[in-house]
Amino acid sequence: MPVGTLGAVKAVTHRDLESAGAEILLSNTYHLYLRPGDDLIARRGGLHRFIGWTKPILTDSGGYQVFSLADRRVITEEGARFRSHLDGSEHLLTPERAVDIQARLGSDISMVLDECLALPAEGTAVRASMERTLRWACRARDRFLAVREGRVSDVEVTNPGQAQFGIVQGGVHVDLREESATRTVDVGFDAYAIGGLSVGEAPDVMYDVVAHTTPFLPADRPRYLMGVGTPEDIVEAVARGVDMFDCVLPTRNARNGQLFTRLGRINIKNAQFAEDDGPVDSECGCYTCRTFSRAYLRHLYAVNEINAATLNTLHNLHFYLDTLRRIRESLKFGRFESFRHEFLRL
Amino acid sequence: MPVGTLGAVKAVTHRDLESAGAEILLSNTYHLYLRPGDDLIARRGGLHRFIGWTKPILTDSGGYQVFSLADRRVITEEGARFRSHLDGSEHLLTPERAVDIQARLGSDISMVLDECLALPAEGTAVRASMERTLRWACRARDRFLAVREGRVSDVEVTNPGQAQFGIVQGGVHVDLREESATRTVDVGFDAYAIGGLSVGEAPDVMYDVVAHTTPFLPADRPRYLMGVGTPEDIVEAVARGVDMFDCVLPTRNARNGQLFTRLGRINIKNAQFAEDDGPVDSECGCYTCRTFSRAYLRHLYAVNEINAATLNTLHNLHFYLDTLRRIRESLKFGRFESFRHEFLRL
Repeated sequence: MPVGTLGAVKAVTHRDLESAGAEILLSNTYHLYLRPGDDLIARRGGLHRFIGWTKPILTDSGGYQVFSLADRRVITEEGARFRSHLDGSEHLLTPERAVDIQARLGSDISMVLDECLALPAEGTAVRASMERTLRWACRARDRFLAVREGRVSDVEVTNPGQAQFGIVQGGVHVDLREESATRTVDVGFDAYAIGGLSVGEAPDVMYDVVAHTTPFLPADRPRYLMGVGTPEDIVEAVARGVDMFDCVLPTRNARNGQLFTRLGRINIKNAQFAEDDGPVDSECGCYTCRTFSRAYLRHLYAVNEINAATLNTLHNLHFYLDTLRRIRESLKFGRFESFRHEFLRL
Repeated sequence: MPVGTLGAVKAVTHRDLESAGAEILLSNTYHLYLRPGDDLIARRGGLHRFIGWTKPILTDSGGYQVFSLADRRVITEEGARFRSHLDGSEHLLTPERAVDIQARLGSDISMVLDECLALPAEGTAVRASMERTLRWACRARDRFLAVREGRVSDVEVTNPGQAQFGIVQGGVHVDLREESATRTVDVGFDAYAIGGLSVGEAPDVMYDVVAHTTPFLPADRPRYLMGVGTPEDIVEAVARGVDMFDCVLPTRNARNGQLFTRLGRINIKNAQFAEDDGPVDSECGCYTCRTFSRAYLRHLYAVNEINAATLNTLHNLHFYLDTLRRIRESLKFGRFESFRHEFLRL
């Protein structure tokens, strides 16, 4: 899922996204709650109508941004009290409010509010946080069902078909992960995500945690690994049973001049590309690679043209989405392991 | 002509430009000479190949930017000596060098170097400047023919079919304009431009100068009014015999949130649009108007998304190019005067 924080993937239009093959967009509850506000979006008929995107949208719960962006946050059993990073105004995000906001946004997939613990953390702290996340999950599910069944009066539901995903926590402790997965499934969500990874731990540790979590999540529901990751991370996570991903890497790195290719990453600002007439990736079929040389892209970046961000983002998103297409195809034809071997060897 | 200063129209891709109906691009010799350099572009096969744009390109001479951007410029009979606004390096732009640089760029239309006098200016200063521009025009034409005929050894010609336009000067003095036009036509260029207008004089003064210049320019060659202007300016100049225009208004204003509509300009950042579900212009068929509401565009602008620049630029360019299409159509069907009346009444 490309990341469209504020209802737009930075530097590319929706039609560019669709031509790159994007099938679902991730958007950020925290940011949209602050600007332009979930009430305003509900009055516009929900997020799809407001932003003019007709394909599915997943919204996060806002928790991650509260933990990483907001000022002076205080976490209690009730929820997270914080000040806006924009104007210092005070807000309270509870499991129930995260449900309500996302109901107003009308995304297709709503995420529960979870506690995002800073790592490294002691085992007891990780367990306490996991337990709180489970209690919040129960409250979030209750609220979600109440909203869906019309038992909450002040929440305008803009998408009656919205699904809700639970989130597994437990740090890098595989026993806690197993327990969190099992008990989150017991709460009974439409599908499940794995949170709290890709926060600084070594890739092998992450892969190991994923491998010890997915067996406890239903095979007939999508499994979503949040905030991951590099193309290699994605292939390795698919090998361990994951279906969905979101990550800012392809878009953020594009804006910094880093481009993904089948032969590794390149930084387009390097002088070595100043007279390189070849495309970014000779095997890539994206608009950028079909039309423009490395020399031109290097020039656009060097002179700080907005177009540099656009063309680089188009390429990186195409690379990511194409990697996922290749993964799906290899799975369909029963040759994922050979694809994986070839992909990681390069 | 949309303005693609550094080989890209800011915030929109070439395919977006083509879908808006752009048939020719303007690019800036001064900027491309400094970065990435005309030699580098010539080694890439010329500007079309370098930037991946297959339709026509017009390049200005670089004179206007030397007069408006460069530091410590000294104008002599030889040419303009200046320091780069980027790194302070010293450069000399002469009529011959402006020809050579544009030959390397390989644009389809090359402009002569003219002296851009700051207004207001005394009549004698305007005459002296006009006379210098004429002497430079003779030198530029000689050089252009020498380069085209292969009599200059160190200039790589990347577009053998390049045309060269002369430029009429003379300030707001209609007698000087007539003399400049007549004598520039005597030099014998492929076509002619009117320079030195839209620099602060009242619209009616500009219209009057244009009306007193075009009769002295061949009717069977395009007449190009440089750096003009508002949609109203364009309609009024067409009424006085002008065929071609370039202006940063549609693109620059878009990036500042100002949008052109058939009912006048609006500034999308205004709070009045926060909950406006209508398109920017209900009669506009551009991607932005077909897909997005004023409320969404206002949101994108308010949160400083790059997409705001892209979608606003797409709309403004479409509005300008559509205005030109409507002008051409009304001329073809012999109803330009009624179109003009209706357009200016609104």
